[in-house]
Amino acid sequence: MNYAMIRYVLSWIAKVEAGLLILPLLIAAIYREWAVFPVYAAIVALCLAVGLITSKKPKNTEIYAKDGFAAVALLWIVLSVFGALPFVFTGEIPSFVDALFEIVSGFTTTGSSILKDVEALSHASLFWRSFSHWTGGMGVLVFILMFIPVKTGSQMNLMRAESPGPDVSKFVPRVRNTAKILYRIYLGMTLIEVVLLLVAGMPWFDALCITFGSAGTGGFAVLNSGLASYTPLQQWIVTISMIAFGVNFSFYFLLLHRKKKAAFRMQEVQFYFIIILTAIAFITVQLLWQNGVRPDLATFEEVLRAASFQVGSIITTTGFSTVDFNQWPSASKWVLVLLMFIGACAGSTGGGIKVSRIVILAKSIKKELIVLAHPRTVRKVMFDGQVVPHDVLRSINVFIAAYLIIFGASVLIISLDGFSLETNFTAVAATLNNIGPGLDAVGPTSNFSAYSNISKIVLIFDMLAGRLEIFPMLMLFMPATWRRNG
Amino acid sequence: MNYAMIRYVLSWIAKVEAGLLILPLLIAAIYREWAVFPVYAAIVALCLAVGLITSKKPKNTEIYAKDGFAAVALLWIVLSVFGALPFVFTGEIPSFVDALFEIVSGFTTTGSSILKDVEALSHASLFWRSFSHWTGGMGVLVFILMFIPVKTGSQMNLMRAESPGPDVSKFVPRVRNTAKILYRIYLGMTLIEVVLLLVAGMPWFDALCITFGSAGTGGFAVLNSGLASYTPLQQWIVTISMIAFGVNFSFYFLLLHRKKKAAFRMQEVQFYFIIILTAIAFITVQLLWQNGVRPDLATFEEVLRAASFQVGSIITTTGFSTVDFNQWPSASKWVLVLLMFIGACAGSTGGGIKVSRIVILAKSIKKELIVLAHPRTVRKVMFDGQVVPHDVLRSINVFIAAYLIIFGASVLIISLDGFSLETNFTAVAATLNNIGPGLDAVGPTSNFSAYSNISKIVLIFDMLAGRLEIFPMLMLFMPATWRRNG
Repeated sequence: MNYAMIRYVLSWIAKVEAGLLILPLLIAAIYREWAVFPVYAAIVALCLAVGLITSKKPKNTEIYAKDGFAAVALLWIVLSVFGALPFVFTGEIPSFVDALFEIVSGFTTTGSSILKDVEALSHASLFWRSFSHWTGGMGVLVFILMFIPVKTGSQMNLMRAESPGPDVSKFVPRVRNTAKILYRIYLGMTLIEVVLLLVAGMPWFDALCITFGSAGTGGFAVLNSGLASYTPLQQWIVTISMIAFGVNFSFYFLLLHRKKKAAFRMQEVQFYFIIILTAIAFITVQLLWQNGVRPDLATFEEVLRAASFQVGSIITTTGFSTVDFNQWPSASKWVLVLLMFIGACAGSTGGGIKVSRIVILAKSIKKELIVLAHPRTVRKVMFDGQVVPHDVLRSINVFIAAYLIIFGASVLIISLDGFSLETNFTAVAATLNNIGPGLDAVGPTSNFSAYSNISKIVLIFDMLAGRLEIFPMLMLFMPATWRRNG
Repeated sequence: MNYAMIRYVLSWIAKVEAGLLILPLLIAAIYREWAVFPVYAAIVALCLAVGLITSKKPKNTEIYAKDGFAAVALLWIVLSVFGALPFVFTGEIPSFVDALFEIVSGFTTTGSSILKDVEALSHASLFWRSFSHWTGGMGVLVFILMFIPVKTGSQMNLMRAESPGPDVSKFVPRVRNTAKILYRIYLGMTLIEVVLLLVAGMPWFDALCITFGSAGTGGFAVLNSGLASYTPLQQWIVTISMIAFGVNFSFYFLLLHRKKKAAFRMQEVQFYFIIILTAIAFITVQLLWQNGVRPDLATFEEVLRAASFQVGSIITTTGFSTVDFNQWPSASKWVLVLLMFIGACAGSTGGGIKVSRIVILAKSIKKELIVLAHPRTVRKVMFDGQVVPHDVLRSINVFIAAYLIIFGASVLIISLDGFSLETNFTAVAATLNNIGPGLDAVGPTSNFSAYSNISKIVLIFDMLAGRLEIFPMLMLFMPATWRRNG
């Protein structure tokens, strides 16, 4: 590992984090929260100091392919440790593990919380929590890459590790420009949602935080009731926004460049919408059928809105909720569990396994059956009109295998705390897929505070593994990663 | 598909089934169960008649590679339909779907039951139920292949579809001889268990049925209390037998040929025992720790016996139980769920994903990480000192993908019946892995009778898919399968 270069990127992380923390500082000033203001100010100063002390540019600015993954994991951990400090020093989340859980949940856009009473937080901390979703959604490194001078290959090595999905598609030859385009789309869509929510009458603070949560597909809300108390129109705006942020950003890139046909031919986006519509239809029908179970979902619009909101929230791995879906009938709950695993599109801010991986896996099953039926046929798995290269297929398969093993081991460790199987299973599903709420004791009206510290650390690992797509976190355990070079 | 040849193999199935049904007929005579005796006699006659009518040998005795899978699936379905008739016509299981569920559960060595009161069955039917485990365990076609005159390649095409595991290893060049060796080992081990249980004082009828259940890793018991009421010595004998039948039979083949070193070097067998010992140690420690939970497990031997029996029963996918493990603490229950998925060794009578597949998957993750850390390295996945061929790796990955998709879809359909997530999840886990009992409402003290007929048909499909390792059942849905040729 090129330690000097890692230190250098780290100094940028600290400086950027200082910049990010200025926003909650402003919020503290606006709401005259003079108890938390000095804490935020001190931490901004601390980050800035750390950033400046370590900012000496190394001679060799290369980040080797083999270092990229571990470096990204490391930098996310550092980002989170700094990010947890405000919660600890304001005394709002006194336990460091809890504070780390909360901010990792923020940056990884998970939205799982250990807080019993969100409304007790200062506006500054509420804002910081939600804002971490927004920064984590697109990726902090992708942001830094716009400014930092490193070799072009090195940028790609970092970006590959941070971007969700089986493959990184560069829109334009230069990584820096790709990052800029991504951030421009992201910023534009964020603005649209804020404006729409304001027009629909939501208070500006809520509109900002809820938009951060849906843009990053995070899921931290600012009210204890989640999003239940917002108006139907506001809920619909959030529903559509969440689903829009779960679409592969290549789709918007193509649209912006007037390549409408190519955009609508993207198979991942097609399947994404097919899955969403099917799930909404299924749940709506089942809820209407069993209407007795939820007498408060009286009208068709209410049922459709509840189904659409929850489906959009879970498949994009946002994790907002407007109803307690823990009370839904089993089949509808299982649909949500399936959506948790499927996740959003690659190249979006959403988590999960990703629609493209699922589609490619399904196609490889079909291919295998055709080969069995016609042994002399040579068949390739096609996606978006192109042959899926062998090493992409292999890495998807290895991803699934690693995913399942981490899943099984995580549930095992946290089940030592003695909660129900459903609680533990969905707690890991919710964190490893960066969703937020699970079912049963970690359902939408509950939180993760009851787990022991060991379990919380396991779930912190899962959130990071989920956001960074597993391999970066596993690379930290490879001795070869820590060998010095460069 | 060579329909004439399928018809010919089918006629053999009918004849063999007539032969198998003579045993419960004898049992009916021994216990003077004159109410069921004529029913069994009539069905023996029916099978024989069907077998003789359809027995004309076709000119072309070839079974094409592409037909092998679908043919095996088809023949297992026919076998089960005939096998269900005694239950229906004796009136002991009046519903045909229930009877089919019960016998498919028997032949696939699952051991899930829809019966509330096993002891109400006649001895003949109890025997038929357990005996179906024994015949299904080694494979009915493997048995028939010893007698039936088909082209050598055709035998391999059938055997590959029926034998569990990622790859069929032929001990000796001729398939027929391999089948004979397998059956000799199977018969020998069965006899040893029966004798041991008789010496340990078990009644002969129970000793036979329990042996059939453990040899085939099935799990149907003859008492409502499962195996709880047998003596500690008898339980230990069954424990060791179950674990022994879950070992890859190649191990015994090597031992018989005095290739001790090669036998003990088999990685799958090594990992199998490591997993078993780890699981037993984990559960024993947790049960001793939480001793208050199970006051009836007072002594160390009792706890160790309970842990060993249940671990041996679940990893081999037998499904016998001596205690209600539904009452165990969450972590121990999750260990059992993990064992359900891991399953026994390939080339044994057990089900599940199989230890060798899990080991190869874990190795491919390690390989991927090494390649990421050393990008210029070329690495191959090794197993038992040999490179795992690319197409075996691919077929394992496709297997896992198909497995997961069938799993998710099955839970979805059966959850329409409204049971808890834990019930539905473990019901599918228990049937798709051919185990028997699940947790919660399908736990060891309960049964599957509460599910609707549609759910039962889904679970029947899962049991067959589990036993035949998925692809044969999926091939039935391929139009190419049904095209006439030969």
